[in-house]
Amino acid sequence: MEIFISKNILSTNEEYANAVREILKDKKILALNLLSSPGAGKTTLLEKTLEEIKNKLKCCVIEGDLSTSLDKERISKLGIDSYQINTVSGCHLNAKMIHEAIKKLKLDDLDILFIENVGNLVCPAAFDIGEDFKIVILSTPEGDEKPLKYPIIFRQASVLIVNKIDLLSHVPFDMNKLENNIGKINPDITSFYTSCLKTKGLDEWILWLKEKVRNKKNA
Amino acid sequence: MEIFISKNILSTNEEYANAVREILKDKKILALNLLSSPGAGKTTLLEKTLEEIKNKLKCCVIEGDLSTSLDKERISKLGIDSYQINTVSGCHLNAKMIHEAIKKLKLDDLDILFIENVGNLVCPAAFDIGEDFKIVILSTPEGDEKPLKYPIIFRQASVLIVNKIDLLSHVPFDMNKLENNIGKINPDITSFYTSCLKTKGLDEWILWLKEKVRNKKNA
Repeated sequence: MEIFISKNILSTNEEYANAVREILKDKKILALNLLSSPGAGKTTLLEKTLEEIKNKLKCCVIEGDLSTSLDKERISKLGIDSYQINTVSGCHLNAKMIHEAIKKLKLDDLDILFIENVGNLVCPAAFDIGEDFKIVILSTPEGDEKPLKYPIIFRQASVLIVNKIDLLSHVPFDMNKLENNIGKINPDITSFYTSCLKTKGLDEWILWLKEKVRNKKNA
Repeated sequence: MEIFISKNILSTNEEYANAVREILKDKKILALNLLSSPGAGKTTLLEKTLEEIKNKLKCCVIEGDLSTSLDKERISKLGIDSYQINTVSGCHLNAKMIHEAIKKLKLDDLDILFIENVGNLVCPAAFDIGEDFKIVILSTPEGDEKPLKYPIIFRQASVLIVNKIDLLSHVPFDMNKLENNIGKINPDITSFYTSCLKTKGLDEWILWLKEKVRNKKNA
């Protein structure tokens, strides 16, 4: 019975995810699902990325949190259209939430929809929200073994952003071990190495973004 | 229908939690449920705590992870009896898992059962596992606003361990803001400030542990 219900929810989620995907395909909007532990730096990555690209690419942001609109406020300060989803006790965003949110956002001429998921390395992995790519952010204080301990989300992601590299000399994190560990779980992942706080290492990530926007426009 | 199933699971979980509680009460074992984001330092807290108390108090550990037994291996090196639960895609431990685990552990003369939950600030909050106290670990790189963004788990916890205080000068974390934020969510929480990696600030936490062990024996 539990399995039946679980399937039923996923089937409904899949329908909403497909509906979201159709809308975004029609509008040629690149949608990215940002995933990480709490405090790995998703919002800071967004701030620094938006500062760099907002004059060239039209972006908007959906913010997912249990509570507060602190992250939306940070994005709004940059003059970026954003929408806050508060899940209360919910541990992930689902496609129905995104379907609701995109009705409220100005989609015309939009290039990128960033979706910052709830801080959680487990549950968001189970929910397709109609995104083009899952981006997983791992911060160095979390440890180099995390891909082995949370394999599902690291396997599903197209991009790994290793953030807080400015702390490398202060934390027990071995970049060679991380690369070995991620290689076991997802050898095809594209990795970038950043300190979002210090605005370091963002250039290659932004080049990747621009290429994916072009691909979406030409699809 | 979803609500019905949800209630049904929690009712079953409650039955198992009560069964666990009865066993631990009978054996006078203090049970602690350690909760945090991935990589906040739960296992290092355990290692440093066990090193300090293992000659005076008999302890064992249940380790919860999606995958790997890396944390159990770290605990076993200290000569401590431990049991690994791999949840695969499961985002939390439940009371049934603990009920199974304690059948495999040597409970006689045990003083403390530490249960390291899956790294997740959301889902474990919804599951009573028969513990005496929930202990939440927040590491400074995660940010001082986390109690506001994940209020349920911070409200439920009896103890907050602010870990990685050795990184305070390298991360944007304001201890006054944290204390203000936790005060809004759970003014009665007992806080300790540690660097488990550098073995700092553990004395008061260990005094708290010893007091709770005494209370359990005398209950």
